[in-house]
This record gives sequence, C-alpha cells and structure tokens, in this order.
Amino acid sequence: MRFDVLTLFPELIQSHLNFSIMKRATEEGIIEVNTINPRDYTLDKHKKVDDTPYGGGAGMVLAPQPYVDAYEGVNKEGNSITIMMTPQGEPFTHEISKELAQYDQIIILCGHYEGFDERIREIIKPREISIGDFVLTGGELPALSVIDSISRNIEGTLGKIESAHDDSFSDGLLEYPQYTKPREYRGLEVPEVLLNGNHKLIEEFRQEQKIARTKAKRPDLYKKWLKQQ
Amino acid sequence: MRFDVLTLFPELIQSHLNFSIMKRATEEGIIEVNTINPRDYTLDKHKKVDDTPYGGGAGMVLAPQPYVDAYEGVNKEGNSITIMMTPQGEPFTHEISKELAQYDQIIILCGHYEGFDERIREIIKPREISIGDFVLTGGELPALSVIDSISRNIEGTLGKIESAHDDSFSDGLLEYPQYTKPREYRGLEVPEVLLNGNHKLIEEFRQEQKIARTKAKRPDLYKKWLKQQ
Repeated sequence: MRFDVLTLFPELIQSHLNFSIMKRATEEGIIEVNTINPRDYTLDKHKKVDDTPYGGGAGMVLAPQPYVDAYEGVNKEGNSITIMMTPQGEPFTHEISKELAQYDQIIILCGHYEGFDERIREIIKPREISIGDFVLTGGELPALSVIDSISRNIEGTLGKIESAHDDSFSDGLLEYPQYTKPREYRGLEVPEVLLNGNHKLIEEFRQEQKIARTKAKRPDLYKKWLKQQ
Repeated sequence: MRFDVLTLFPELIQSHLNFSIMKRATEEGIIEVNTINPRDYTLDKHKKVDDTPYGGGAGMVLAPQPYVDAYEGVNKEGNSITIMMTPQGEPFTHEISKELAQYDQIIILCGHYEGFDERIREIIKPREISIGDFVLTGGELPALSVIDSISRNIEGTLGKIESAHDDSFSDGLLEYPQYTKPREYRGLEVPEVLLNGNHKLIEEFRQEQKIARTKAKRPDLYKKWLKQQ
C-alpha cells in the first residue's frame, strides 16, 4: 500500500513515521508513505499557497493552483483512491478503514488554515473524510490516524507486526475488559472466570461484557448491533 | 492550560509540538505540554509495563502498577480533569472540546497494544473519550487531536494565534464554501455574490450554503440543528 500525502507540513507526517506501527510497517515493506508539498508547486513568485477569502472573513484560504498541480504531479499506481481530510466529510469508521485497505494507493489531501478553495474539491473530486465533529488546525493528525488505522487493516500487517486480536468495532461491539498480572492489585481482583481455564465460560463472559458495555456506553452502536443479530 | 500526557511513546507527542499551532501556543505561554512515561515508574526489574491477558488471547495488556503510579506522580493544578483516550469512550466533539478548554489542567492517559488493565479505569476513574469508531495502535494521535482542538478553543488563543472564524460545528452546521484568488481557475468562477461587496447578500448566501451542505452531507447533524431552531 502506497500513501501519498499532500501537505504544507510534511515534517508533521514524516516525524510520526519514525515510530510505532508505521515505522515497522514501512520497514516490512507493507506500507510506503510519501509526502508532497503543494508549496513546491506554486507559481506565485513569493511562494504563496493561500490568500484572503472572497466575500470577506478572517483567515486564509488554500489557493487552487498549488494543490491541483501537486495532485496532478502524483504518479497514480494500480487501484488508486483520493481522499480529502475535512470536517465536512463522512465520518471515518472501522468499516471505511477496511474498505480503504483494499486499495494499492491512497492519495490524501490535508488542508490547513481556513480550508480549501472550493474549486479544489470540484476539480479533484476526492472522497471527503472526517475523523470527527471537531475542528483541528490541519489535516495532518487526521491523515496520520487514517494511515495508522488502515495499516492495521491491510491483509497480513497485524500477522506480521502484531498479533491478531478482538479490537473494538471488529464485530460492531466495544471490547471486553482486559486484565493482566498481578492477580490482585490494590484489593482489586481479576474476575474468577478468567483464571480457571474454561475457554467456553471465558468466551461467554467476554461476550456478555462486550454487549453490556456497548449498551451502557454507546447505545447507538448497541442498537445497530441488535438489528444485525 | 497545562496538559500532562501519560504515554509509552513521549517522542510521538513531543515531535508534534515543534510544529504549527501547538508550537505557537506553547511559545505564547497559552499551553504547556508535559509527557510522563509509565515505563519510568515500573517496579518490574526488566522495566516491563505490560503482560499477557488473563483468560487468554493475543497481544499484551498494560499492567496497572506503572500507569497508576505514574498518574499519582502528576502534580494536580487548579481545576484538573483526567481523560483516557480509548475507542470505548464517548465520541469527542466540538462541544466537549469547548467544555474541556475551561480546565486549568488536563491529564491524558494514552494506551497502546491491547489496551489498559481494567483496574486502571477503576482506580483512576478517568473520563473516557474516543475520537471515532476506528482502532489505532495507540492513544497518541487521539491525544494530539484533543490537545490541538482544545488549544483552539481556549479563550484568547485564536485571537492571539489565528483569526477568529466560522469553523464547521461552531453553530452546529458545516462550513460554507470558501474561495480565494484567482477569480477564474480552469474555467471555474467564484460565485458572483461574493464579489459585489454586499455583506447582507454574502451572509445570506453563506448561511444557505451551510444549511444545504449539512443537509446533503450530514443529515444527522442537520436534524439536530433543525430541532434547535
């Protein structure tokens, strides 16, 4: 899987790649992350990439020329999709992550400042994705979140890098409670059922816990899950 | 505002602070971000912070002792709140961001691997927050997203660092389309209404656009907004 990230702050992406799953996935050759800076493509003699908004208002808007030219300079490879990180997009989920993990290449557009000139959307026609109903300074943290999540969902990645496991959302429910040593800590004990080695009872306990905590913490997810049973 | 981030990967937090709004907010003295590594608190002679899960299953679980001791070592200052980044938490929103921006100190617990031993939750009793229904390798990207978002909502921050503006969600709607120079780009023109300087008409156009695109892209938000009118 190849990621091409268009960003005015490539250091924000690159500095993160030196750590954790992304570093290991890169070393294993499972993912490759390139950054492209639209500033390198601006035709403006002062290297400007943004300007004041038409119609007034505070802040700066990203001009179309540097982004569109940078985008068109990216080599498209195999089964490729372009996404734009924006609070206006569809909310990113585990399902979308698994869907995107099927592509050979994902081109990611990161905004900054007041956002994109609308014509960037009209020309590139990206799939618009949001990581949540809150506002950030730029699309870099959302892009990194999407790359991290998708990397986990690429066939073979977790097998090579981490163990497979029962994450939250993998079956529409939140994860069951986890316990490790010591058996007692500050008077709090690990539930008896987890200690007796009866795998059927352990599985039942965990499934009950998943259902109970999804119902309590996320009634919206619980209702969706119920419908699918 | 002081952030104290408990993380096994302090570099992931620190490397991000050298850039963008967080760097500027730090330099202006508006925020201060500290990292605390639970590994420095482990009493295990091999410096271990995790172990296999009771009841079986793949992956490693974060043991209670290093996290609880690291947490108890943090100096509490003024009006302080503790949050845990976990996919099991309540979904983070612009409203929660504004609410959290009122505190003097936010202590953030980041997990990694298979997650926290349940007793960490029981002892620390953090407010559990999720940035979305997807799974990441660790809580660091969510923590950075929360810090970035809250920093924007601290009274005075945007005034000092950026211009105030009409972000998505600030009134429950998505943002209106933005345009900057040139007036025509690849045959696509800036809407006439934004060029004539009639502020009443510009405001009407933008409000219509906000409503129309919220209705089209996020019917759930649109319904919520309608109810509040």
